[in-house]
This record gives sequence, C-alpha cells and structure tokens, in this order.
Amino acid sequence: MPLTLTPVLDIPYIHAGDDLAEIILRAFERNKIELLDGDIVVVAQKIVSKAEGRLVDLKSITPSARAIELAEPTQKDARLVEIILRESNGVLRIRPGTIIVEHRQGFVCASAGVDHSNVGKAGWAPDDTTEAEDWVLLLPEDSDASALALRQRLEQASGARLGVLIIDSHGRAWRLGTVGVAIGVSGLTGLADLRGQPDLFGYQLRITQVGVADELAAAASLVMGQAAEGTPVVHVRGFPYPLREASLRELLRPKNEDLFR
Amino acid sequence: MPLTLTPVLDIPYIHAGDDLAEIILRAFERNKIELLDGDIVVVAQKIVSKAEGRLVDLKSITPSARAIELAEPTQKDARLVEIILRESNGVLRIRPGTIIVEHRQGFVCASAGVDHSNVGKAGWAPDDTTEAEDWVLLLPEDSDASALALRQRLEQASGARLGVLIIDSHGRAWRLGTVGVAIGVSGLTGLADLRGQPDLFGYQLRITQVGVADELAAAASLVMGQAAEGTPVVHVRGFPYPLREASLRELLRPKNEDLFR
Repeated sequence: MPLTLTPVLDIPYIHAGDDLAEIILRAFERNKIELLDGDIVVVAQKIVSKAEGRLVDLKSITPSARAIELAEPTQKDARLVEIILRESNGVLRIRPGTIIVEHRQGFVCASAGVDHSNVGKAGWAPDDTTEAEDWVLLLPEDSDASALALRQRLEQASGARLGVLIIDSHGRAWRLGTVGVAIGVSGLTGLADLRGQPDLFGYQLRITQVGVADELAAAASLVMGQAAEGTPVVHVRGFPYPLREASLRELLRPKNEDLFR
Repeated sequence: MPLTLTPVLDIPYIHAGDDLAEIILRAFERNKIELLDGDIVVVAQKIVSKAEGRLVDLKSITPSARAIELAEPTQKDARLVEIILRESNGVLRIRPGTIIVEHRQGFVCASAGVDHSNVGKAGWAPDDTTEAEDWVLLLPEDSDASALALRQRLEQASGARLGVLIIDSHGRAWRLGTVGVAIGVSGLTGLADLRGQPDLFGYQLRITQVGVADELAAAASLVMGQAAEGTPVVHVRGFPYPLREASLRELLRPKNEDLFR
C-alpha cells in the first residue's frame, strides 16, 4: 500500500481561542478528504500554539540575572532568553545566535522552540497597534495532551480510528538543515520496537528501534514546506505501523544513555 | 499535489556484481509503475553495497594496535573495529556496544555503517560453506557516485528526468530510534535554502535551511520497513522541491560549526 501525504489546503489564519478541531474538520470537507480508520492527521506546532494562545509579549517580561548573563554570548534579547529558560529544563550549548536547550517537554532543540517569525500583526496581538516584533510564540503547554484532545474531537466527528501528530522543525547535530520531528503524539506508534524480529536469515536484528513518528513528521514537513503557513495540516494514509496509544516520551533518549549532552 | 511513496515489490535478493539498474527497471515494470519526469527512486544502501560487492570476510582482517585497543571498551571484535576504523575519518564516542564515527564520506554514524545483519549465507559469500557470521557489509565506496550512476541508467531507460537517493538508517543524539537519512544524493535538492524568502508577514525567516533529502529519506524508510529486505526500493511522486544537481555534501555540517563533536 502506498504512503500518501496530502496537503490540506485553505486552513485559515489561526487566532488565540479558535476551535482548531472544528477548523480542521471543515478544511477536510472543503478538500473533499474523508477521514478513514487508520488515517493520521499531522499538524504544525505553530497553529496549535496559536489556537492555545501561547503568545507572549516581550514587553511583559523581566529578565532574570541568568537570562541577562546569557544574552551577550548568545546575542539574544535578554527577555527572549528569559522565556527560553522558563520553557527549558536546562541549557546544553550556547554560541552567538544559538542556544540549545532541553525543553520542558523533554526534547532537545534550539531556543526551546520559541518562535519569532510568522507571529504577525493584524488580528494576532491583542490590539492592532501592538508591534509584532515584541511578540513571540511558545510551543504548546503539553503537546501530547494537545494531540490527544485534537484526536478525540476528530475521531468523534469522523467515527474513524485516527492518529494525530504535532510536529516542529529541529536542527540536528552533524547535519545541516532542519527536519520535521514529532513533539506531540497520540494514537500512532512513536517508537517501533523490532527487537526479536529476525531478519531474512534468522539473525537477530541489531538496530531494534525505529523512530517511526519522527519519520512521519519528516515526511509531513516536506509537504508542509517552510516559507508560509499555507499548509499546516497534512493528511496521511497508509502509515505502515500500528495505531495504538502512544506518547512523545517513547522517542526521548534517557539523559544517562545520551553520549551527546 | 500529494506526496506518494510506493514500495517497489519483489526486488530479488541482490548479489555482488548484479546489474542493479536493470533489476530495478524490471521491478518497476512488474509493479506497473512508469517513471515520469520529477519522480525520485529511493534505494536502501544495503542492496547498493551488495551489488557493489562491499562484503568483507573478517577472517581476512588483521587488526591494528588501535583496533585492539578499542575492542575491549566497545565490546566488539577487534577485526570489526579495524574495518570500522578504515571506513572512518575519526572516532567521536565509544561505549560498550557502540562506536560513533565520522565516516569517510563525511557523515556521523554508528560503526561506520558496517552491517552484520542480513548478510546471509547462501549465494552471498563466495561459497556456501562460508559462515555468514564472518562476513560484514560496508557502505558503498562513494554513495553519491553510486546514486549518480544509477540515476543515469534509469534516466536513459525511462527518458524521464529523475532523482536518486541512497538511504541508510541512523541513530540520533537525544532521541531514541533510527530514522532514514540520505547517504547518496543525485538529481534532487539535498538542502533547500529558504534564506531571503519572507514569511506571511514579510519577516525574514530565521530557520533558513531545510534538510529535504533527509526528510524524504525518512519518509521512504517508513515505507521500506526494517525487518527484512523485502522493500529496498521506493518510488516517490510529488516531491515538492526542485530536481537539480546535488550532493550529500550539502547536508553535512562543517566540523568547525558543529557543537556536538
């Protein structure tokens, strides 16, 4: 069976408080895509965060001593550094322009996923006189919970057994370019455990775990593109791993087993 | 346009010296998939390496002093360590069961991609009495060159303008599970450079480079699966980035810009 990823077009601009599930369901109707058992809906973090009102006005932030200390070597606004620190369990690396942290939710990424682009002016900040440059967008409060809540709504409306994946774009050690990664997982295999499955000749496989939710996130990221918010939702049919209860946590390497902290 | 990844079924077991392009072309015919302009053919490293005869008999290897020194802390056969070192520019990390290196071809991975599983006995080693356990499979000598050669053959036969991607599965810092990554790229964008493209509100994008060949590798890896060699070739239609001359090198982060060496 082919794996098919279809962009769900014409998702409107999302505002704080919007009913994202309803907006996505209507978009599926307009795109004439029926949700069937086994389908997966992949959603860009940005529209989840916006619907959840995860905007912060930098003018409201008083940086801590630690944030002020990190502002110079990272060449970042101390108020932005303060937000990044509040969103993080710890800092892994800094250098001019870059701060790599472990996010509260356990994954490692740049700037705790705090986003300064595409925040926009009109209809976005509480009033239109607010300068967009002063606003930043945080990741969802709890991406797994957001994925679960969205999945429940989509399943109720469609009657289908679905998976929902919330994705962001992360840079990587050793390789250039961001790739899509899972930050919230509900209803689909996150980590596929192939331990004990023999290969063609009956040897035990050595590479035993596959980050299939991250592979799907990367695939969906291709379809979403990067330059605009035009395609923040992708419909997936033919995902070749079981739909089951799942969590982002299964994809996170325990700190004490990590050689690159 | 949807992105569609279709497994190319019934690829036969590959032996050293096989004409891989011819085998793939025949499999496309059997699967009734026509190659059209813009299509991409993704091929698992393993069958490229096998066709190129990149098998080594451990019994033929005399380990160096350095390999013997690394065998104990990595808990690996010193002859296998010797092969890994020969395939590498340098060692990043070791621990029991694991040796992370920079491969000759520039990417960072475990064990230099040297593979002990799925090597198999029959028809594989030079004679059937050879124990498969003594044989390991190296990556292609030059994966970019292999991708280019395969692409030229497929383009000649089909008359279509194609991309060819050779992929492997790599572990990652910070996250569990392997994901498909590009190790040889020909004819499709490797790294998409979005610098200078404004977002919806005219801000300059901050995340400027996307590892699109790696995103496609991850997508294809999903379709190939991991447990067997049944599906080492995947056909891709709808890749949303330009087909152009390319190389794996565009995806490799320069050492001096890498915070996790």
